[in-house]
Amino acid sequence: MQITANNPDRKTWLEIPENSDFPIQNIPFGVFITKDDIITIGTRIGDTVIDLGALHQLGYFKGIRLSEDVFLQDTLNDFISHGRKRWRSVRNRIADLFDIENDRLQNNKNHRQAILFSIQDVEMLLPVDIGDYTDFYSSLEHATNVGKMFRDPDNALLPNWKHIPVAYHGRASSVVVSGTKIRRPKGQMMPKGTTTPIFGASQLLDFELETAFITTDGYRLGKSIPIEEAEEHIFGMVLMNDWSARDIQKWEYIPLGPFLGKNFATTISPWIITMDALEPFRVKSPKQDPQPLPYLTAEGNHSFDIHLQVAIKPKGNKETVVSKTNFKYLYWTMNQQLAHHTINGCNIRSGDLLGSGTISGPTEDSFGSLLELSWGGTKKIKLKDGSERKFLEDNDTVIIRGYCKNEQTRIGFGNCSGKIAPAKN
Amino acid sequence: MQITANNPDRKTWLEIPENSDFPIQNIPFGVFITKDDIITIGTRIGDTVIDLGALHQLGYFKGIRLSEDVFLQDTLNDFISHGRKRWRSVRNRIADLFDIENDRLQNNKNHRQAILFSIQDVEMLLPVDIGDYTDFYSSLEHATNVGKMFRDPDNALLPNWKHIPVAYHGRASSVVVSGTKIRRPKGQMMPKGTTTPIFGASQLLDFELETAFITTDGYRLGKSIPIEEAEEHIFGMVLMNDWSARDIQKWEYIPLGPFLGKNFATTISPWIITMDALEPFRVKSPKQDPQPLPYLTAEGNHSFDIHLQVAIKPKGNKETVVSKTNFKYLYWTMNQQLAHHTINGCNIRSGDLLGSGTISGPTEDSFGSLLELSWGGTKKIKLKDGSERKFLEDNDTVIIRGYCKNEQTRIGFGNCSGKIAPAKN
Repeated sequence: MQITANNPDRKTWLEIPENSDFPIQNIPFGVFITKDDIITIGTRIGDTVIDLGALHQLGYFKGIRLSEDVFLQDTLNDFISHGRKRWRSVRNRIADLFDIENDRLQNNKNHRQAILFSIQDVEMLLPVDIGDYTDFYSSLEHATNVGKMFRDPDNALLPNWKHIPVAYHGRASSVVVSGTKIRRPKGQMMPKGTTTPIFGASQLLDFELETAFITTDGYRLGKSIPIEEAEEHIFGMVLMNDWSARDIQKWEYIPLGPFLGKNFATTISPWIITMDALEPFRVKSPKQDPQPLPYLTAEGNHSFDIHLQVAIKPKGNKETVVSKTNFKYLYWTMNQQLAHHTINGCNIRSGDLLGSGTISGPTEDSFGSLLELSWGGTKKIKLKDGSERKFLEDNDTVIIRGYCKNEQTRIGFGNCSGKIAPAKN
Repeated sequence: MQITANNPDRKTWLEIPENSDFPIQNIPFGVFITKDDIITIGTRIGDTVIDLGALHQLGYFKGIRLSEDVFLQDTLNDFISHGRKRWRSVRNRIADLFDIENDRLQNNKNHRQAILFSIQDVEMLLPVDIGDYTDFYSSLEHATNVGKMFRDPDNALLPNWKHIPVAYHGRASSVVVSGTKIRRPKGQMMPKGTTTPIFGASQLLDFELETAFITTDGYRLGKSIPIEEAEEHIFGMVLMNDWSARDIQKWEYIPLGPFLGKNFATTISPWIITMDALEPFRVKSPKQDPQPLPYLTAEGNHSFDIHLQVAIKPKGNKETVVSKTNFKYLYWTMNQQLAHHTINGCNIRSGDLLGSGTISGPTEDSFGSLLELSWGGTKKIKLKDGSERKFLEDNDTVIIRGYCKNEQTRIGFGNCSGKIAPAKN
């Protein structure tokens, strides 16, 4: 089936602000709650949120095999389970309905009123019930930076890193939607120069600029997803901030990996951008040397040219962009991550969240965490208001943004933001 | 409220086989499916499974505030969310109904027929929808053994081990109920003497004898559970086998911890033994030196005297008990684990699974994994059929059992078992 929704020449009868992340070529999926406390599934064109539950009830998805309540839910899991063919049909249908040449809904005032909301009048919720959340560590530049700082500058990469997309399990319960307040965590730390651990609020609070993808159902336990099939099982992508308390993390993480230094909160953006929408922005991933094992090998363009940036906004002041990077720098692709994750028979479910790991670029202004930008706290980052940062301060808001752009179309992700609240008394 | 269900003098009108794990003083909770494909919540007395959904519909829980469909579900999460007071009321009521002195249900043949099943006629299912699964590493003996084998025999324990109950996040999707076939995983390994990784079926497949506890809801994200309150949030315990592929694990786990070496399967026993049932078996946990930080300190008896053992049964042959140990050896208590897990504000939900980590005792015949029993593959374990094991072979069944016993009562956990199926072609 063709992805007619991606037609770059299509115009819509809805208003689109200049430089919007959400032209009619995007058509992402999310979950929102109205002022009347109705929770439903929607998409977004410009600054208009479209109630897909209402659209379905009014018959606009006729001819597409969808369960009756598929959009009248508080998560996208069920829709995602419907599979790629239906996602594509629904997205194509929405593009058609809002095409400027189509007057069916355009001229039906009652229907328009039932279906359309201003983004100002709704609140976005977490789009999926996340069964399991896995975070990878797939940026060569990030792994190298961390290795240089904490291990050996001459042998920064660990021996396994170029052979396997290293990953760990994260905490699903503390994944929150953009806009949720982030409480500075307390915990146990062993600061330099001390010989017994202390307890207190983290002093080295950091962001990690990441993306994540959301899966549909894989196979039963025991059966792997071959790399050639991986794309069938990826619904779409979000931006992610993997908040990290470096002092807690440093003391706890040997030998079983990050735990309380990470699981106090992870923020994702509310709109899932479909892989179909990202299709025009495919690029080759970096050359891999040594060649990975066959189960991790696939020909073709399996990365995406997604511009990413992170900004810090101190309370009452303007934001400063502190890093600009790109998804395409990632060494391991999403297909490789998914093939690796299931090679042992581990089962994947609809709504699972798989993070990229911190995405750092090759230059100092493209690093994806304050740990790297401040080089372990040895350098200060200047903000526009004249203040400086090594790590995050209370009331700082961190905003991650991402978009793809070619000559005809700009597909954006919207914001992934969170504001630091002071630690509890 | 008194735990009248624990009355050791109570006898039941149901038949109880000698040495049963399930006397009327146990009253565990589980989920089962009947031959007619009806899924419901039950308890077990002797070899009789009791349909709590039917019991509730027939009015036997009158006076206890329970939602109407609380037992007509395929997981216990909703019941667990009802809180400790209701768990206790329900358990007390069940004890009363099946007391030999009570003829209400005993004399009602129609009701008995609707409510009672032979354990032979039902299949047990996973008792909870596990939102998040965390595995601790709380056995001093196990951590010491692993440290001796893989690091420094003179400095076996890592510096953080006696200060924090070290843990990592596991995979929830691959937790399965006892009896589920375990497929030998394939994956990437770097065997000794090789310089490039190889791909194949794990050659070092192992069990880990563990217990796990299941939580009820904690607080919203950002609020900790104080150690004094921890028991309010623990519903009960199960036996757990944290299957481990040592060769995959060894190559992948630095620096982010275990991943594919563990997440191919984790088996739990089907009946959740309530903390109320375990109450008579409280004991002091080992003395902790150094004294942990205040947020991890609590007076009183917070461990339990639970006898544990693991047996290997080769295909067509008798089983051999290869280890006997006890829950009470664990250095860190469940209360400390839960207080630590939430000290950074991480939120806990009803149905979360928190594993103990491998439970090894002080002697060589009480180690909780083949890795330790075979001392890294340097020793052979003799089985009754004359064969020997360093690690698990195809078609081996591993059976973990556990029970508490005093002069009056024996409370058992039932079996936690799994049979190894050969790797896929």
